[in-house]
Amino acid sequence: MVDTNTTSTPSSSAASRTVLLLLRVLTFVFLLIALILVAIDKETVESSIGEIEIKFKDIHAYRYMISTIVIGFAYNLLQLALSIFPVVSGNRVLTGNGGYMFDFFGDKIISYFLLSGSAAGFGASEDMHRLFKAQDLPLNSFFEKGNASAGLLLIGFLFTAIASIFTSFALPKKA
Amino acid sequence: MVDTNTTSTPSSSAASRTVLLLLRVLTFVFLLIALILVAIDKETVESSIGEIEIKFKDIHAYRYMISTIVIGFAYNLLQLALSIFPVVSGNRVLTGNGGYMFDFFGDKIISYFLLSGSAAGFGASEDMHRLFKAQDLPLNSFFEKGNASAGLLLIGFLFTAIASIFTSFALPKKA
Repeated sequence: MVDTNTTSTPSSSAASRTVLLLLRVLTFVFLLIALILVAIDKETVESSIGEIEIKFKDIHAYRYMISTIVIGFAYNLLQLALSIFPVVSGNRVLTGNGGYMFDFFGDKIISYFLLSGSAAGFGASEDMHRLFKAQDLPLNSFFEKGNASAGLLLIGFLFTAIASIFTSFALPKKA
Repeated sequence: MVDTNTTSTPSSSAASRTVLLLLRVLTFVFLLIALILVAIDKETVESSIGEIEIKFKDIHAYRYMISTIVIGFAYNLLQLALSIFPVVSGNRVLTGNGGYMFDFFGDKIISYFLLSGSAAGFGASEDMHRLFKAQDLPLNSFFEKGNASAGLLLIGFLFTAIASIFTSFALPKKA
């Protein structure tokens, strides 16, 4: 009884596993750079009331951004470990439906987290930067680094969203 | 030749279509209220430099929020029309794989849009509100309405995200 409609032949499944692994490694790298960029982000300016130092901690949206990066980072580490473990030990972890469900919901939920972090960061940067510029405290370097971090997070989100499309299409194979 | 592994019997498929329709109607309603709330959002305050009026247009994140609400609104209208048209005319629109693909990618992409709008709105509100409060221009009513709109948009996103889970699981039926 050959199912002619399915495209999930062993070779295409192996290919999509390789693409998934690549997407997760890329997400991991982009999140790492985003995390470093926002964590070291600070600027000191002279103002009428003295010297002001601004750090990522002063912008609540940036703190939220860091939380989402850390969550995405932990998830991708776990996924990479789950991909490598079977190769090393010869045993599969999360076989059958469990694995497909974990991948599907994991990618879906984590991609939402990453996007919300990036959008909150961009939203706050844009309007805060305009307000600071209007008060002659441009803080250009600070907000540019914040935006760069949010941009890298957005790229990390895109990779996870593409992974999520793969793991959604993998659902048929659960049967 | 009965496929014992699939749960997509005609009755469960009809049930999930009803749930989907309900989710889209709910999203539609929440987006409508969110749109009205943010569009009428303005506040006038007395400051040292005279009277200041702030409107949604002054916050770029709120403008982006409105764009995402309008996109989500248009998508849900289209989906509702596509659901109602076959009932009225007796003809199905977007049959076969096309329909499932449209639902899958539509729900996925629109849920990302809605979430990014809500997150950008919350991110900007939170930090802008703190900054205005520090300058003795609390603008509480303005930012509370902005947050309320972002909250309704977040609920609309949740409904679309749940719809997206349904349309992902519907993909197996494409064969």
